[in-house]
Formats: sequence, C-alpha cells, structure tokens
Amino acid sequence: MTESINDQADRIITLAKARGMSVATVESCTAGSLAHLLSQVEGAADALHGGFIAYTKENKTAAVGVPRDLLAAHTAVSAEVAQAMADGGLSHCPADFVVAVTGVAGPEPDEDGNAVGLVYVAAASRDGRAKVIRHDFGKRGREEICVAAMQAALGLLEDLMAGPASGRGKPDEECAP
Amino acid sequence: MTESINDQADRIITLAKARGMSVATVESCTAGSLAHLLSQVEGAADALHGGFIAYTKENKTAAVGVPRDLLAAHTAVSAEVAQAMADGGLSHCPADFVVAVTGVAGPEPDEDGNAVGLVYVAAASRDGRAKVIRHDFGKRGREEICVAAMQAALGLLEDLMAGPASGRGKPDEECAP
Repeated sequence: MTESINDQADRIITLAKARGMSVATVESCTAGSLAHLLSQVEGAADALHGGFIAYTKENKTAAVGVPRDLLAAHTAVSAEVAQAMADGGLSHCPADFVVAVTGVAGPEPDEDGNAVGLVYVAAASRDGRAKVIRHDFGKRGREEICVAAMQAALGLLEDLMAGPASGRGKPDEECAP
Repeated sequence: MTESINDQADRIITLAKARGMSVATVESCTAGSLAHLLSQVEGAADALHGGFIAYTKENKTAAVGVPRDLLAAHTAVSAEVAQAMADGGLSHCPADFVVAVTGVAGPEPDEDGNAVGLVYVAAASRDGRAKVIRHDFGKRGREEICVAAMQAALGLLEDLMAGPASGRGKPDEECAP
C-alpha cells in the first residue's frame, strides 16, 4: 500500500465535514492511536467525537456494552465482538459512523489462542448499515500490525461512509487475503 | 525534563502490576495518545483497561457523563471538567485509577477563548482520592503541547498511585508554573 494512513485520515475527516457527519472509534489493539491519528487532521474537532479504548474484555463490556456472553462464546477477536464494539460505540456516543478494531498485536497469541496478526475491523452507521472484515496480517511486529489494523479500519470506515444510505440486514462479512 | 514519557509510562504500568491495580485514561486534547503510550509497555494488558476519548463537549457528556451545565459554566478546559472527566472514567470502567486530560493544543484558542497551551490534568482513585493541576504550556506547537500534557498526566497519575489510600475531601488544586 503506497498511500499513507495520514492521507486516509485526511480524506475521512474531509468527507465527514463535507457531509456534516461525525465519526468515532472503538479500539482494542490499536489502543487510541486511530483516534489520535484522526485528531491530527486540521479541523478534526468538527467531525471527530473521540471514542473508546476497550483494551480488556472487562472494559469492552463496561465502556461500550459488549455482552459478556458474546465475549465468552466468540472470544474478543471475532467478527461478532468487532460488530458489537461498533454498535456499542453508536449507542454510547453521538457519532454518525463508528469504526471498531480488535486484534492480536502480539508478541504472543491472546489468552484464547487467537494468533498474532488476526484482526477484525467493523464499521457501523447511525442509519443502520454495518460491515465486518477479517484480516490475517501474520506474525509481524506489534507496531506493524497496529499500522496495518489502522489502515484496514480507515479503509472500511471510508467505504461505509461513501456507500448509499440503506437499511441494515445481517452485517456483511468479508474475508480479506 | 530529561525523563522520557516512555519511562514514565513504564513505571506506571510496573507500579500498577506490582500492586494488582489497573488504570484508564479520559482524554480530550491528547485524543488517545496517552492510552496508546501506556499500551506499548510490555504486559500492559494486565494493568490497562483502556479509556475514553472525549474530544467534543458532546462526547464528554455522552461517553463519561460530564454534566452539560458544568461544561456551560466552566468551559471544557477547566479544573471542574477535568475532575468530572476523571470521576466519569471511574464510573464508566473498572479501573482503580483514572487520569484525565483536557486542554487547548491549538493552533487557535478554543471556542470559549481558552488560550493555546492551557491544560488541566486530573486524577482520581477508586478509594476516593483526587487531584487536579493546571498547566500553562504557552503557545507552542500542537505536538509539543500534547507531549507536555502527557508528561503532566503521567506525573500526576504516578503521584496519586504512590500516595496513601485515604478519604476524599475537596480535590486539591495546584497551579503549576
């Protein structure tokens, strides 16, 4: 990927401002770096509400209401939990679009045996659309996985923001290479 | 200050782990970078729940329950709101200690006329202690103010973590040079 994540962040804030809409993040493995990146775009305060850093399972429930039984059934790194994080963001803050990231940055697999580099990104919109993508970035360094996760999250968010407003069925799930 | 913020973050996670305690952040101007810094310490997941990025006034209320009238009376960059952010963090996540940051990173004063470089950091503990410090870092660049705010927040958090457990009266307010 040749495009920088700063360019991606810039496009998202510009798009949100042009449409009078706002965004927020719910972050696990990226731990706030995605919101910080978006905040660095000039005039971001007009389009970025902020977000939630749900680093532990306990805080995924406390901060954005991810159901405990969902975490127990699917582990924290799953399509179901990623989607629940995005939905929880919409319920807990006023943003029109929320993007969520949950994954294993390493250096070891998580306590449920999810492999290093496994990352789910999910996005949800106030008008009822949603999307989840699974990525397997492989056993790379923490920082590299974090950047790849941010790129994936921003790509998905932009995709959902650019799409038509329509009703929500079951979230799409894609499997990225 | 010669000590790096990474060393400060390291000491806080080490201290929290040694005492079986946990921390979280509530961030406005630092927008997630403080939680991200703490997450980079090895084994941080044992002591860091995550946090909240309350970038807009609206999200300070939605995410951590800062009362609207408090924001109206004191503006978002005030001792009262900083303390309410820290207290709100304790109410909305399971951490034993919460540190909050609210300030003006610039390049312009905020909509209420607070000057660039004005930053309040507040910390609160589950056992009822609290502290707020006002800093005026002057009209420096955004990134420089953000780093100074992070240093101040980590210093205050460590100070509160190291202190004796005791009842809470009115929060102390200090005025840093």
